[in-house]
Amino acid sequence: MKAFVYGGPGRMAVEDRPKPEIRAPGDAIVKMVKTTICGTDLHILKGDVATCAPGRVLGHEGVGVVDSVGAGVTSFRAGDRVLISCISSCGRCDYCRRGMFSHCTTGGWILGNEIDGTQAEYVRTPHADTSLYPIPAGADEEALVMLSDVLPTGFECGVLNGKVAPGSMVAIVGSGPIGLAALLGAQLYSPAEIIVIDQDDSRLEVARQFGATHTINSAHGTAAESVMALTAGRGVDTAIEAVGVPATFALCQDLVAPGGIIANIGVHGQKVELHLERLWSRNVAITTRLVDTVSTPMLLKTVQAKRIDPKRLITHRFELARILEAYDTFGRAATTKALKVIITA
Amino acid sequence: MKAFVYGGPGRMAVEDRPKPEIRAPGDAIVKMVKTTICGTDLHILKGDVATCAPGRVLGHEGVGVVDSVGAGVTSFRAGDRVLISCISSCGRCDYCRRGMFSHCTTGGWILGNEIDGTQAEYVRTPHADTSLYPIPAGADEEALVMLSDVLPTGFECGVLNGKVAPGSMVAIVGSGPIGLAALLGAQLYSPAEIIVIDQDDSRLEVARQFGATHTINSAHGTAAESVMALTAGRGVDTAIEAVGVPATFALCQDLVAPGGIIANIGVHGQKVELHLERLWSRNVAITTRLVDTVSTPMLLKTVQAKRIDPKRLITHRFELARILEAYDTFGRAATTKALKVIITA
Repeated sequence: MKAFVYGGPGRMAVEDRPKPEIRAPGDAIVKMVKTTICGTDLHILKGDVATCAPGRVLGHEGVGVVDSVGAGVTSFRAGDRVLISCISSCGRCDYCRRGMFSHCTTGGWILGNEIDGTQAEYVRTPHADTSLYPIPAGADEEALVMLSDVLPTGFECGVLNGKVAPGSMVAIVGSGPIGLAALLGAQLYSPAEIIVIDQDDSRLEVARQFGATHTINSAHGTAAESVMALTAGRGVDTAIEAVGVPATFALCQDLVAPGGIIANIGVHGQKVELHLERLWSRNVAITTRLVDTVSTPMLLKTVQAKRIDPKRLITHRFELARILEAYDTFGRAATTKALKVIITA
Repeated sequence: MKAFVYGGPGRMAVEDRPKPEIRAPGDAIVKMVKTTICGTDLHILKGDVATCAPGRVLGHEGVGVVDSVGAGVTSFRAGDRVLISCISSCGRCDYCRRGMFSHCTTGGWILGNEIDGTQAEYVRTPHADTSLYPIPAGADEEALVMLSDVLPTGFECGVLNGKVAPGSMVAIVGSGPIGLAALLGAQLYSPAEIIVIDQDDSRLEVARQFGATHTINSAHGTAAESVMALTAGRGVDTAIEAVGVPATFALCQDLVAPGGIIANIGVHGQKVELHLERLWSRNVAITTRLVDTVSTPMLLKTVQAKRIDPKRLITHRFELARILEAYDTFGRAATTKALKVIITA
């Protein structure tokens, strides 16, 4: 089968690989229908993700059709159309039983990282009963690809951890796919205002189309002052960090109101400064999270009920044979305006 | 009247001052019975607290007898014995109505900071109806002095923010009065283990007497490894920071388990490093808080029910005339083994 393979820092190729086989009773083999590329895949290609060895088939998102299942799988059978969660969860370990699927002791984020992933014609999915979701009849499968990772990540790490609530003031720092996913999810909770902050005017225009009530270009260095002007000097109840660099985390500390929350989504490559000399007395919380995908069933219902349209995140489409072009388009998002790219297997 | 006055960095004196008078309808004048000294008072004397001007009568803790009340006060009258909260709250502003008394727009921590405090024969307490608590008949008033600040601070900022729960693993970094207050409060929630960490063996001995299940001397530099050994390599569900320096906050980041909370109590004078490059994916929360004293009525009941004995924090007693000696004893706690000192007016 065709597969997109990480070959070490800066190296990638489409290769012919053997079709994966069942290895454990809980496995399923899924024939991929559609997948996508995540910002994390770009991190891997740069060599930033130590757990991902050269030779790995990348990809942790997608929808497909069950090809075969192991002897222990009871919820799925060949022919079932399924959504693949980016997080594999055994459902049995202490972390899974607390809803922290991301820290499953035999799962977590392993697809396209510690084991071969979804950017291929077939993928082996461990713990299939608790890591795949049945696709409702008539569902838009392209839209559901957004439920593998980007939508639950924005929702769980940003909206739920940030306790977005009716009437609250929200700022989202970063208007890329993850920030926009948080923006879509935040609107489920009817906050008073959602201020989106980015350095790119065209991304801010997209944010307005997605429902931002205010946008601020932070390239001018006065984003914090602008937020204070919009919030009667108090700051925001929820500041969602959707970039992952020290400057954006610093900005969140300048935006958050007493009693507020900084909900970090960004994947950080270095330590940051935390201004406890100011924040120790301000009754704030800072949260971090690797998405658990506990919200996937709920998000599936909101998508089916048309309360969220994640398809708006999709800007480009490619066949699997042209995945190198898809990576190029996604990697140069500032120029191509790419958000999420759909790859059809 | 006699009063203890901050005279600028490094300067202090007992002075004769006029007895305070009612200035606003919500005020009460309280004749002090017993007060104490807080670590924050030592910060003021060093010049670290910019809001506290020279000439200020210090002190934000104590019990007393109401001497007179303003026309708007309805809950108290002359002769009532009262506990003075370190936090003044109007009960009417947005923050107070959310239970964030510490951020009351006309109150908060003002006693012995922005207005004259309790280390005197009399004190004026604003917003008396919502900042004083009636002392139950027969209560041990010395014990209740601990409810003005130290006990609710350890409880709210450490135990409540840290979500200490039955069966959980807790570490408290710092075994001074605040860490010990958190230790007393944590036991109300029956955690599995409470590990107390400090650099002073005699303080750790006190922690064991107060209920710590394990103690670790961090002077050896292997505290994190010791905690991992005690927690099967996972870390603690709650790490309570009760010191307020970069090294102890750093240690908390090394101790916290996936899904855990770092509950900061410490008053920090400088920024710290936050290792988001490790923590971004670990589903942790970091909380800060200036005590709101929302738990004071509940803590009063636990003390009356003998579920907590805060009197154990009291090591020394002085008359108000000897308050300079009390400060000296409290300020040299490493030598004198002082925890909280009671000053009788």
